[in-house]
Amino acid sequence: MKAVVITRPGDPEVLELREVPDISPGPGQVRVRVEAAGLNRADLLQRRGLYPAPPGAPRDIPGLEYAGRIDAVGAGVQLRKPGDRVMGIVAGGAFAEAVVVHERETISIPTHISSSDAAAIPEAFLTAYDALIRQCGMTSGDRVLIHAVGSGVGLAGLQLAHTLGCITLGSSRTPSKLEAAARFGLDHPILNGDQGFSDACLEATAGVGVQVVMDFFGASALEQNLKVLAAGGRMVLVGLMGGPRAPIDLSVLLTKRLMLRGTTLRARPLEEKIQLAREFEAHLLHMFETGRLIPVVDRVLDMHQVREAHQRMEANETFGKVVLTW
Amino acid sequence: MKAVVITRPGDPEVLELREVPDISPGPGQVRVRVEAAGLNRADLLQRRGLYPAPPGAPRDIPGLEYAGRIDAVGAGVQLRKPGDRVMGIVAGGAFAEAVVVHERETISIPTHISSSDAAAIPEAFLTAYDALIRQCGMTSGDRVLIHAVGSGVGLAGLQLAHTLGCITLGSSRTPSKLEAAARFGLDHPILNGDQGFSDACLEATAGVGVQVVMDFFGASALEQNLKVLAAGGRMVLVGLMGGPRAPIDLSVLLTKRLMLRGTTLRARPLEEKIQLAREFEAHLLHMFETGRLIPVVDRVLDMHQVREAHQRMEANETFGKVVLTW
Repeated sequence: MKAVVITRPGDPEVLELREVPDISPGPGQVRVRVEAAGLNRADLLQRRGLYPAPPGAPRDIPGLEYAGRIDAVGAGVQLRKPGDRVMGIVAGGAFAEAVVVHERETISIPTHISSSDAAAIPEAFLTAYDALIRQCGMTSGDRVLIHAVGSGVGLAGLQLAHTLGCITLGSSRTPSKLEAAARFGLDHPILNGDQGFSDACLEATAGVGVQVVMDFFGASALEQNLKVLAAGGRMVLVGLMGGPRAPIDLSVLLTKRLMLRGTTLRARPLEEKIQLAREFEAHLLHMFETGRLIPVVDRVLDMHQVREAHQRMEANETFGKVVLTW
Repeated sequence: MKAVVITRPGDPEVLELREVPDISPGPGQVRVRVEAAGLNRADLLQRRGLYPAPPGAPRDIPGLEYAGRIDAVGAGVQLRKPGDRVMGIVAGGAFAEAVVVHERETISIPTHISSSDAAAIPEAFLTAYDALIRQCGMTSGDRVLIHAVGSGVGLAGLQLAHTLGCITLGSSRTPSKLEAAARFGLDHPILNGDQGFSDACLEATAGVGVQVVMDFFGASALEQNLKVLAAGGRMVLVGLMGGPRAPIDLSVLLTKRLMLRGTTLRARPLEEKIQLAREFEAHLLHMFETGRLIPVVDRVLDMHQVREAHQRMEANETFGKVVLTW
C-alpha cells in the first residue's frame, strides 16, 4: 500500500509518498481502507522529530485520524463487518491507504457525512469532548473560554459548549476567524492582541470570569488564564504552542480552588481509547446526524499535496481542519 | 460570653481572652456551647494579619472548628435538638464559648468520643476527605503521597488512604514523626531532607511514582511533586508553607496527563459546606464509631493557654492536633 513517509526530520519536503508493507487485521481488529485523513499539529511536530510515535505505532508514517470503509476483519470481530463506514483516532499511520485498529475503537460515520468531512471529526471532537466534558465537567450555564477558536479542536470545543447551553468566549489572533466562528455559536469573540485576552474576558463576563478554559498555548497564556478563571474554575491544557515553562502563582489555585490539567489522547492505552470511542458514539454521534454538530473543513487536498497541507497549517492560515484524501 | 480575641496583628501575645457579645440562633440555626476547639495553621496566619476572615465570619475571633453541645435552636430546626453533641467547621469564631451554625453543617459526635478528641476531627478529616476522595478520586490500590504526614490533616489523609486500601507514602522532616505515623498505616516513610523527597518516593514505588499527592508546601515542592506523579496522577494543594510562586514545566502535565488543584474550605458557600458535612456523616462517621479512624491529639490545653498553643504549632513540634478546651 502507499503511505506518506517521514524520510528524515525536517521541513515539509521530507515527506514522501512511498510503498510500504500491507497490513492485516488480527483477532478483534478490522482493517479500514482509508479514504480521508485529517491533519493535526502533532503531525507537524512529528515531522520535525519532536514528537516520536509511541510504542506500537508506525514510526515513520504520520496521521492520527482516519475515515474510510472496512475491507477486512480479524477473528472474533462482532461489532463491525466489511463495508461498514467508520472513523477514529490512531497513535500514528493514518496517512496510509489502510489502518488496522481494534473494532471497538472505531466510530460509525453517519450516512449523510462524506469521508472527507468525517475525517475532520475524530481528533477535534474526541479531544474536545474528553477535555471539556469528561475532564472539566463542562455543563449548561458555564462560561467557557476556548482559545485558538478557529482551530479544529477549538471549533469542536466551541460547538460542544454552545450545544450544551454554555456561554462561549473564543480567542484568536485573527479577526476574520472570530467572525467566521460566530455561526458555530461564539457568543463573545476575544481578539488576542498585544494586550492579551484577560481584560476582554473579564469584561465579557461582567468581572466574574469563566468556569472552564481550553488552552493550547501553555506558558504564554498561563498567568492570564488563571486570572480569568472564576472560583471553582477548571482549565484543560491540550497544547503548548506558547512554550512549556512559566512561573505560576499557586496562591491563585488555592484561593479560587482551581483545577488545572494536561491531556493528550495519543499515548493512552487501548482500553481508554475504546471507552472514549464508545462514549462518543453513544453521546455525541446523534448530533452529527442531525447537524447540531458540524465538522469544519478548511480544505480538502489530495494526499499528493501533503507538503502543501503542512505548509498551510504551519502558517496558521487554516480555519477548521485540513483533510487529505486518497 | 468569653472568646479569644486577636487584639492586633502580631505574635501570640496579641491574643487575649475577652468578653464578647452573646449570640443567638436564627431560623435553621443552632447554637453550640463549645467545649473544645482545634487549632489550625490558618489561625496563626489570621493572627498575623495574613488571612482575614471572609464576610460573615467574626473579624477578630479565630477558630475554624468546634466540638460541643447544642444549647439553643432557631425556628424550623429539624435535624438537631438541645443536648445533641455535635462538631463541625466554621469560617471563624470557634475560639469562643459558643458558635451559631446552620443545623445541617453540624456533624454528630459518636458517643464514645470525648469533646477534646472530637475537636481534632473536623478540619483535618473534612479537608482530607474532600481533597483526596472527592477531588482526587483516591481509591484502593492508589499509591498516595501525604506530605507533612505528622500534621493534623496529614494524619487524617494517611488514615483515609490506608483505610481505603491505598499504598501510603508519607513525608516529614522529622524522623520521630515518621516513626509515630507507622501505627496510622504509613507503608513508606519518606524523610524529606536536603535531597528532597522525589528520589525516595520513586524508589519506594519501583520507579512508577504515585497516583495521588496531598501537598502543603506549594512552590518549594512543586517540581518534585510533578516528578513523582505517575501518568494520570492527581495532586491537591491545601497549603503554601513553601511559598506561592514557582516555575512550572507544563509539558509534564501534558505528557503525564496530570491534574493539579488547589483547595480551601473556609471561603465556600453554605450549601457546599452543608453538602460536605452530610456526605462526611454518611460515609465516614461510622469509621470513627468503630475506631478505624482516630482523631490524633498532640495535646489538650486550656483556652487560657492559647498563646502557648500557637507557639507550639509555630515551632512545628506538634504531632496531630492541638486542642483547646473551656
